[in-house]
Amino acid sequence: MKVVKKIQSVRRLVKAARKRGKIIGLVPTMGALHTGHISLIKAAKKRCDFIVVSIFVNPTQFGPSEDFQRYPRPVKEDLAICRKNGVDVVFMPSTEEMYPERNMTWVDVEKITEGLCGQFRPGHFRGVATVCAKLFNIVGPDFVFFGQKDAQQAAVIKRMAADLNMPLKIAVCPTVREKSGLAISSRNNYLSEKEKAAAACIYKALEKCREMVSDGITDANQLKKQMKEVFYEEPSISIEYICIVDADTLEPLERVGKRALAAIAVHIGATRLIDNIIIDTGK
Amino acid sequence: MKVVKKIQSVRRLVKAARKRGKIIGLVPTMGALHTGHISLIKAAKKRCDFIVVSIFVNPTQFGPSEDFQRYPRPVKEDLAICRKNGVDVVFMPSTEEMYPERNMTWVDVEKITEGLCGQFRPGHFRGVATVCAKLFNIVGPDFVFFGQKDAQQAAVIKRMAADLNMPLKIAVCPTVREKSGLAISSRNNYLSEKEKAAAACIYKALEKCREMVSDGITDANQLKKQMKEVFYEEPSISIEYICIVDADTLEPLERVGKRALAAIAVHIGATRLIDNIIIDTGK
Repeated sequence: MKVVKKIQSVRRLVKAARKRGKIIGLVPTMGALHTGHISLIKAAKKRCDFIVVSIFVNPTQFGPSEDFQRYPRPVKEDLAICRKNGVDVVFMPSTEEMYPERNMTWVDVEKITEGLCGQFRPGHFRGVATVCAKLFNIVGPDFVFFGQKDAQQAAVIKRMAADLNMPLKIAVCPTVREKSGLAISSRNNYLSEKEKAAAACIYKALEKCREMVSDGITDANQLKKQMKEVFYEEPSISIEYICIVDADTLEPLERVGKRALAAIAVHIGATRLIDNIIIDTGK
Repeated sequence: MKVVKKIQSVRRLVKAARKRGKIIGLVPTMGALHTGHISLIKAAKKRCDFIVVSIFVNPTQFGPSEDFQRYPRPVKEDLAICRKNGVDVVFMPSTEEMYPERNMTWVDVEKITEGLCGQFRPGHFRGVATVCAKLFNIVGPDFVFFGQKDAQQAAVIKRMAADLNMPLKIAVCPTVREKSGLAISSRNNYLSEKEKAAAACIYKALEKCREMVSDGITDANQLKKQMKEVFYEEPSISIEYICIVDADTLEPLERVGKRALAAIAVHIGATRLIDNIIIDTGK
């Protein structure tokens, strides 16, 4: 496994791999790798035969009051995980390598970025779309792998890739969960044991939604109300949003039909957590 | 020469050329090809060995009151020019091929888009940057050729390519002029003979600026004032702007030094014309 910090190094390695006929897979990450990321690497290895993992805590997607500084950066552990899982190249650029001068060019995706997390994290998806465009141009992958846990991010990137005719495919992989149902996230590191136990409530609410839909309830207001009630048992959790939207356009739905997304964001202490499930009534 | 309308067709042709070891050059145009475009094709042929010319009148870079509808579209003549000049592929997509659904993703370049034409054509450079990003992703060229006549466009695209780490080089080629000094432009087609004669005044003003600089005058206000005076002899011309800016950042200069840009935009009747020269005092 090669670990490189320079754009020209990763380009050279990918070019050489492509010459050998390899299919290139990219797993873009901010490091602090966990079983969710490992599942992305495994998915990449199934579909591709040369795997690049990028590790870059991207400053342009954090708001001024967000956790850019305290975001975990366990480099040694991350590299061990990549090595164990058969990654070919880890691209680990410095901020200066990625943004050598003040960045003036932004990729803005309209509409899809406005609801859900977009309302509460202004500029976040602009930063995400921009750094992904940069990483895609640097690596030149055939496939890029994202987790369904960050549903809005996946929808934004899919739309960006389609609108800008990027010559690659976006694969979105299922959310990985702890036994309690809590979605695996690097930000779970911030939680105390007690908070972690309380956080299981998020998935309980999503499960409640799924059960109700399978019982024939499709009215979004009723589903959201019932999900909200699940949180009554956990007063340490404050709800940021509970939404039911179209899984691709992220437009709010009045009634659940094909590919609806039930999505939740909460705060537990200083930690913000998100989760979602796709519900499909088949009609 | 192949003429293709589909994205997948141009991709297939370029992929095959690349397999044969060809260096790919792209000349993006809106058609109505003239000697300016031909000079770009010639520059491309010098540096590359597989030339793609795109012809697409991009709706997203025209304002609602601009000349999208009346913009000339002489397809037959354009194809003859491409054939004569040894172009390998003409990519001539429909609007539906380029924008199959409502475009939601925009490439926004800050600062550089704000001055000069940007003030008078809101959204223009957003449309230009976005369609160029799309064309670059569709064709995947090694080199892309633009004319210095559209100085702000060239600066915006260079900045976009650098900021987004696009794996290609932008070449900016000298402005081609008529004997009168008038910069060749598709929009010259709109001018009557009388208007065309008057329009020569634009380059006279730029030449005046160059002369003054070579006489040691570097104060931007003084230079702009003298350029403005050249237009007193042509009352049919109304000046939109006369600017002296840094040629790369397009920031206004108080004094001409290395790589300054003197730029002019005017209206003659219903036609808007632009022109510029680079002045360099060497210090």
